[in-house]
Amino acid sequence: MSSPPPDTPRRRPTIADVARRAGVSAAAVSFAVNDRPGVSSVTRARILAAARDLGWQPSASARALTEARTRAIGLVLARSAAQLEGDTFFLRFLAGIEEVLTAADYALLLQIVPGEASAALPAYERLAAAGRVDGFLLTDVEAGDPRFALLSGAGIPVVLAGRPVGRAPFPWLETRHDEGIAPAVAHLAELGHERIGFLCGRPEFEHQRVREVAWRSALLEAGLAPGPLGHVVFDAPAAALTVLQEEPTAVICSSDALAVELYLAARSLGVAIPGDLSVIGFDDSTLARYASPALTSVRVDYAEFGAAAATALLAAIAGEPAPDYSPSVPELVVRASTALRRRR
Amino acid sequence: MSSPPPDTPRRRPTIADVARRAGVSAAAVSFAVNDRPGVSSVTRARILAAARDLGWQPSASARALTEARTRAIGLVLARSAAQLEGDTFFLRFLAGIEEVLTAADYALLLQIVPGEASAALPAYERLAAAGRVDGFLLTDVEAGDPRFALLSGAGIPVVLAGRPVGRAPFPWLETRHDEGIAPAVAHLAELGHERIGFLCGRPEFEHQRVREVAWRSALLEAGLAPGPLGHVVFDAPAAALTVLQEEPTAVICSSDALAVELYLAARSLGVAIPGDLSVIGFDDSTLARYASPALTSVRVDYAEFGAAAATALLAAIAGEPAPDYSPSVPELVVRASTALRRRR
Repeated sequence: MSSPPPDTPRRRPTIADVARRAGVSAAAVSFAVNDRPGVSSVTRARILAAARDLGWQPSASARALTEARTRAIGLVLARSAAQLEGDTFFLRFLAGIEEVLTAADYALLLQIVPGEASAALPAYERLAAAGRVDGFLLTDVEAGDPRFALLSGAGIPVVLAGRPVGRAPFPWLETRHDEGIAPAVAHLAELGHERIGFLCGRPEFEHQRVREVAWRSALLEAGLAPGPLGHVVFDAPAAALTVLQEEPTAVICSSDALAVELYLAARSLGVAIPGDLSVIGFDDSTLARYASPALTSVRVDYAEFGAAAATALLAAIAGEPAPDYSPSVPELVVRASTALRRRR
Repeated sequence: MSSPPPDTPRRRPTIADVARRAGVSAAAVSFAVNDRPGVSSVTRARILAAARDLGWQPSASARALTEARTRAIGLVLARSAAQLEGDTFFLRFLAGIEEVLTAADYALLLQIVPGEASAALPAYERLAAAGRVDGFLLTDVEAGDPRFALLSGAGIPVVLAGRPVGRAPFPWLETRHDEGIAPAVAHLAELGHERIGFLCGRPEFEHQRVREVAWRSALLEAGLAPGPLGHVVFDAPAAALTVLQEEPTAVICSSDALAVELYLAARSLGVAIPGDLSVIGFDDSTLARYASPALTSVRVDYAEFGAAAATALLAAIAGEPAPDYSPSVPELVVRASTALRRRR
């Protein structure tokens, strides 16, 4: 009988089982499987047959020791559950990463740490020190990012998904997200708007600062003075009200979530969208489609970005140069929240 | 000088470095670190000092071989990027899992495979065969789920997040989500509605079937005949239109995403919400808050569920019984989409 007696615990076969069946040491099994010298070809064949009979495969842990690879990359996010929910960037970025990793037989080791960015530092430190990943992708790159010193000291491959402020010790990739602002300004200018505000996310994030700069440049280009500017520091509803108090006829928002906060603030003030106020969001998320009126929004291909970032990190791990990343141009998806400026 | 010469490659120290510094074999380092016999206490102290000096820690791969643990659990999802985006359940569930894993120094190995559930089978097979995780959490449990046979054959701990149909070879947990339907029906009945429809997600998912049953029971309890029922098979907008064609005065939807699809369908037919039609969603997602009118919805604590599922799986991996899970009662969050039935 080839099946085990019924009281044998059903468990994964180990290298010891293979060694016993082939009548060799565990080291010999390891040599045979890893094609190392020290085992005769006859013995090697016997060992491989034993492994096949038992359905044994070298475990990823064992291969990791041999290859000095874990076949996993790390992504640590500092996010509360509530923040995660509205985070279109993260979900699309994740989908792109997974597409590349699955094809490369790599896995994503994901840690989500509630709280501010600094709360995530111990997670990076632990994963790096324990050798549980072959490299890290960093998102939410900040000015003076404390992860740079920590991870360059650990000597582990890192790729930044986002443009760093100034010099960084790691390669980085960036989308052309900032190029999505100019078409939004141009669309509003064509509709006759002259007082175009901007509602911006947390200013310590470089990608937010870059969009604000793009808004200023596009207004300059269109011959318009800057409209009101609001930054979310603690509270999006308060920032939305601040911008509206200066009576813009149009506002570009740095995310769809901010745009729907602006909808709520406008409704509370009796300001009609798009009659009194045109609104443009950013991300083209599910919210944009379902908002009422449906929200004109800038679409950036974050899945493509995630795939490129994962590809660059796998290249860095293999000690190869990163392939070129040619990010798509952002697209303005026009819906019902933008209209001709009402003459008063 | 204690720092390395400038041309020394900066890399993580290895067990070989520690062995060299302490003047022993790598095996002796391993014995010393794992508190195994075969190394004198003097040698052991010298080895630990060398490890400390070099900043070396046994890698997770090495510990995994020693402990036969990877300190990772697997979650494989069959989802397209677009599906992932609207998936409030997944995001809250993920946040709950991460909370427990981070505290236990475990990590989540996440694979997202585009396509139908069956497309994920090879991912489970590969991760299980290669020993890259200590256990799996399964979501989206289906009738006749093919993962059951695959994973029970692999002999790896599994916990089901969701009630299986009939017997299953693994322990399972479930929220009290179905108990969220009765308060929704009661709320509508109190508002005078008698023709209460139900818009249901894909019927092969057990949790969808259970909600449909709960809707029927609650109507029976309230002395009402079942209103129109729509199932999403391919296309949510079509299912929404089908339900509306039978002119219910209220519809309960099995997700907020379905509810906003119903909003769009109602708008296209000139049906006013809540004037002509009251709508209740399920999940209490960001969409519910931002929809116009803001959507009355059923809130289930999916983060609590994720935490409980991760806790149960860690217990199974440790060979211990799972602690009790007492799921919270779902909460009906009343907003502006439900109103008194208009008498015609």
